[in-house]
Amino acid sequence: MAHELIQRHQATLESALAAFAARDHWSPHPESPRAYGEPVSVDAFQGRELLLDQPGTDGRVGPGTEEGGERSPYGPELGVAYPHASDPDALTAAARAAQPAWAQAGPLLRAAVCCEILARINARTPELAAAVMHTTGQAFGMAFQAGGPHAQDRALEAVVCAYAEQTRLPATAQWTKPQGKRDPLRMVKEFVPVPRGVALLIGCNTFPTWNGYPGLFASLATGNPVLVKPHPRAVLPLALTVETAREVLAEAGFSPDLVLLAAEQPGEGLAKTLALHPDVRIVDYTGSTAFGDWLEDNARQALVYTEKAGVNTIVVDSTDDYRGMLGNLAFSLSLYSGQMCTTPQNLLIPRTGITTEAGPKSYDEVVTDLADAIGQLLGDDSRAAALLGAVVNPGVLERVERAEKGEYGEPALAPRAVVSEEFPQAVIRTPALIRRDAADGALPDECFGPIAFAVAVDDTAQAVELLRETVRERGAMTAAGYTTSPEVEAAVVDACLDAGVSLSLNLTGQVYVNQTAAFSDLHGTGANPAANAAYCDAAFVASRFRTIEIRRHN
Amino acid sequence: MAHELIQRHQATLESALAAFAARDHWSPHPESPRAYGEPVSVDAFQGRELLLDQPGTDGRVGPGTEEGGERSPYGPELGVAYPHASDPDALTAAARAAQPAWAQAGPLLRAAVCCEILARINARTPELAAAVMHTTGQAFGMAFQAGGPHAQDRALEAVVCAYAEQTRLPATAQWTKPQGKRDPLRMVKEFVPVPRGVALLIGCNTFPTWNGYPGLFASLATGNPVLVKPHPRAVLPLALTVETAREVLAEAGFSPDLVLLAAEQPGEGLAKTLALHPDVRIVDYTGSTAFGDWLEDNARQALVYTEKAGVNTIVVDSTDDYRGMLGNLAFSLSLYSGQMCTTPQNLLIPRTGITTEAGPKSYDEVVTDLADAIGQLLGDDSRAAALLGAVVNPGVLERVERAEKGEYGEPALAPRAVVSEEFPQAVIRTPALIRRDAADGALPDECFGPIAFAVAVDDTAQAVELLRETVRERGAMTAAGYTTSPEVEAAVVDACLDAGVSLSLNLTGQVYVNQTAAFSDLHGTGANPAANAAYCDAAFVASRFRTIEIRRHN
Repeated sequence: MAHELIQRHQATLESALAAFAARDHWSPHPESPRAYGEPVSVDAFQGRELLLDQPGTDGRVGPGTEEGGERSPYGPELGVAYPHASDPDALTAAARAAQPAWAQAGPLLRAAVCCEILARINARTPELAAAVMHTTGQAFGMAFQAGGPHAQDRALEAVVCAYAEQTRLPATAQWTKPQGKRDPLRMVKEFVPVPRGVALLIGCNTFPTWNGYPGLFASLATGNPVLVKPHPRAVLPLALTVETAREVLAEAGFSPDLVLLAAEQPGEGLAKTLALHPDVRIVDYTGSTAFGDWLEDNARQALVYTEKAGVNTIVVDSTDDYRGMLGNLAFSLSLYSGQMCTTPQNLLIPRTGITTEAGPKSYDEVVTDLADAIGQLLGDDSRAAALLGAVVNPGVLERVERAEKGEYGEPALAPRAVVSEEFPQAVIRTPALIRRDAADGALPDECFGPIAFAVAVDDTAQAVELLRETVRERGAMTAAGYTTSPEVEAAVVDACLDAGVSLSLNLTGQVYVNQTAAFSDLHGTGANPAANAAYCDAAFVASRFRTIEIRRHN
Repeated sequence: MAHELIQRHQATLESALAAFAARDHWSPHPESPRAYGEPVSVDAFQGRELLLDQPGTDGRVGPGTEEGGERSPYGPELGVAYPHASDPDALTAAARAAQPAWAQAGPLLRAAVCCEILARINARTPELAAAVMHTTGQAFGMAFQAGGPHAQDRALEAVVCAYAEQTRLPATAQWTKPQGKRDPLRMVKEFVPVPRGVALLIGCNTFPTWNGYPGLFASLATGNPVLVKPHPRAVLPLALTVETAREVLAEAGFSPDLVLLAAEQPGEGLAKTLALHPDVRIVDYTGSTAFGDWLEDNARQALVYTEKAGVNTIVVDSTDDYRGMLGNLAFSLSLYSGQMCTTPQNLLIPRTGITTEAGPKSYDEVVTDLADAIGQLLGDDSRAAALLGAVVNPGVLERVERAEKGEYGEPALAPRAVVSEEFPQAVIRTPALIRRDAADGALPDECFGPIAFAVAVDDTAQAVELLRETVRERGAMTAAGYTTSPEVEAAVVDACLDAGVSLSLNLTGQVYVNQTAAFSDLHGTGANPAANAAYCDAAFVASRFRTIEIRRHN
């Protein structure tokens, strides 16, 4: 089967390698739900048992246990049972036993097997979309695209980036060194990429596949077995992924234990235990800054790739498309109720107002017009629900309630409860837009969820300096600027290069600052405190393997 | 001048990039002293003052101070004065101020400037050879080649590896996403590599240039300013290097403070202070395991690349060229008195003997024959001195004296004092070959210097397992094997891939296990405790910079 898989995926790999280098739009995964089969209902999962035959299983996680299972932010319990491992050593031992044959398979066959896993995952997109929707609270459209094809794109990107880095050196090389009149010295040298060891993926609640796949596939493609530790509220999407990966690996003649689900009971603290295990040599993590910092400080035996949190800032100086700017901002702030690590939070607006093609607009006008644009975008409950999704967890809801009470400042727009006809139990809130003034003290710190701040600043120059400071001190996954002035644009670019954040300029159409596309955009930079890595550059994969040289005379 | 430098070095860069990928023999730096000017005498340095105009200088290091200056292992004091910095902050501040223009220069111009620095260093090879010889104790021939052209090769290798990784993504890309019947979305995206920050190179005593240049040039080529903290006994080679780098940088219109010498008085502990400085974001280090481990544990704000120490092992199973094997081993053990991190230490020889083309040889015969081969190679004092060089420091001498006293075991060959006519004050010793038996307990731990162990083992299978264990637990920079059996060869290869060390097989001619060639061989693997990095793979450069994306509609 091995050779057949390489044949089957050769063209995709070649196209993906070319796309990775060219950075134009490219994807082998259709993003329209119409390209796939019937939608899958959340009820379809009820009673499923996944992966209970994994090695070391001593019980189950989910329904039928004291702690119960996952509950959808839209209401229903998912009703899926997962394996519980008796002991972290059982998982690491199974993973280590699976490694040697996978290491020997070499970069091309590993890439082809990863492509086959992704093709099967792609075929399960409707099921994964339902699983992502009902664990994260994303609306259907977003769960489908971001949890399905876009996550698969990021996975494939990691696979080809890993393949490219593993094949920079030739597998075999001749070396001939002239020796004057004597015979030349001749050697043949082999360069063999070897895996680093067991990898651990610690999944997140909001984007279990999109944020989980890059590390999972980068580690797997470089020869490392992977333990997948999902967020306790978002087990299903990664469990389905593990199921498919194990199935393909076994069919291809490898041990399925190259990918293992490490589910846990609430409060078990398995991520910490595994992250400190001496056999765990790579950790990928997306989530809170506190735990990300803990991992960086404590998982010293491992390479640790983290995507934590930051404060995303927008400098609003001027625009030649005021309506377009307001519409774009309204959408960015509303999408998935601002529960994205890339959602803008602090909008820095000169106290003296901005210039637009429709004349000058005061700070108050900009804030009021933005609040109106959000209000219009989300005026219809059904349309609003399809954009906002549901509040993902009690922590976010608590912050929304604080915003409602005015605890973050005077709301220019208060959150509004939206009712979904399909899911009346879902907690859905429109974003809050809070007025702040930089003259009153420090800028708002990270406030994950549908809460944005319209911060009055002295002028654009102060906005640029606050952007720089915020990125340096708090970190940021994204930054944006609106300006018609080449000088201001240059200053914003300079601040972003200096502080280490990627920048979107003058977005007024259907591209949003919170969205990045695989094979074209980098996600994160690794250059500021919000993340120490980026999807997907060479640094994200180059240290997941090492190259051993074997040389001999010939 | 900028454009002219790119033109001048374009062909070299292109050839170097091709050589890096092909791994055949290649170098633009002639290795024969005949290709260069007259040799430089150590007396030529007497009274020189180097770099005293560096920012933050509050005094001098070297002659005229209470602590005095460097003394050659061959006897003479060097008599060179270097700047002493008032305060580490003065150095980091000067480096930081120099960074922005260098960051803006971009990968190609930086590579060209690095090439110009290397061309000027190459022209100073006779001077650098003398500096390396009289700080490390290397014999002239080795100081010339390893300290000169071979170090320059490793530097150029790092430059082109850095250039390649910084240009994997295009500087600018068009992105066009079809939108069905609507107009496509169009954006233009820029990808800008940005430096990580101030880099620190901590030089070593034995190979200040060969081990120092890869980190120095990898950091510089990726846009980072570099503080060069030389070993107190080997300041001169790096000071001359810094002098040339500063001269070229200034001529090219950049701040010379992109490369600064951080010399210190003995006992000042400047490496620790600088390594913990919050502005220091990259550390490259070659030296003892203890300090390397300390850096990895404590310099948490920085990327730390270490080359520490290990126990290099050779499995001796069988050979079809017994004389060739003995000659090759004798040379490897003698070269620079075994004061290389790559020198073999533990030779594992079956207690029952080995097979050769000249019939079976017992363990005792192999040991005696090897001792004889070393004795013959070094029988003539003048020839011996030209191979051995001088004992580099009191620590090595102390171990040699312990070997002489039999403290490491029964010597099959005792160290012999060699007298150099040219440098009668030099302490020169031939290697000790000590008999050990694996049945008597643990294998010898690292014993840096001219001390090797002929360890009797049960059989080749035990030798292979001991090789594996040693690499895993103690680390190793090199491994070698002698065998005519395909099965044994496969087992040795497997152990080396598994434990993470590069392997030289059946070396019987003029290639030695302790030597690696830039553009072809990797030095170290990063896969075992001896080093966390390799010269030079993508992982060595890929994290020294980050990529920031700027995107806008077009």
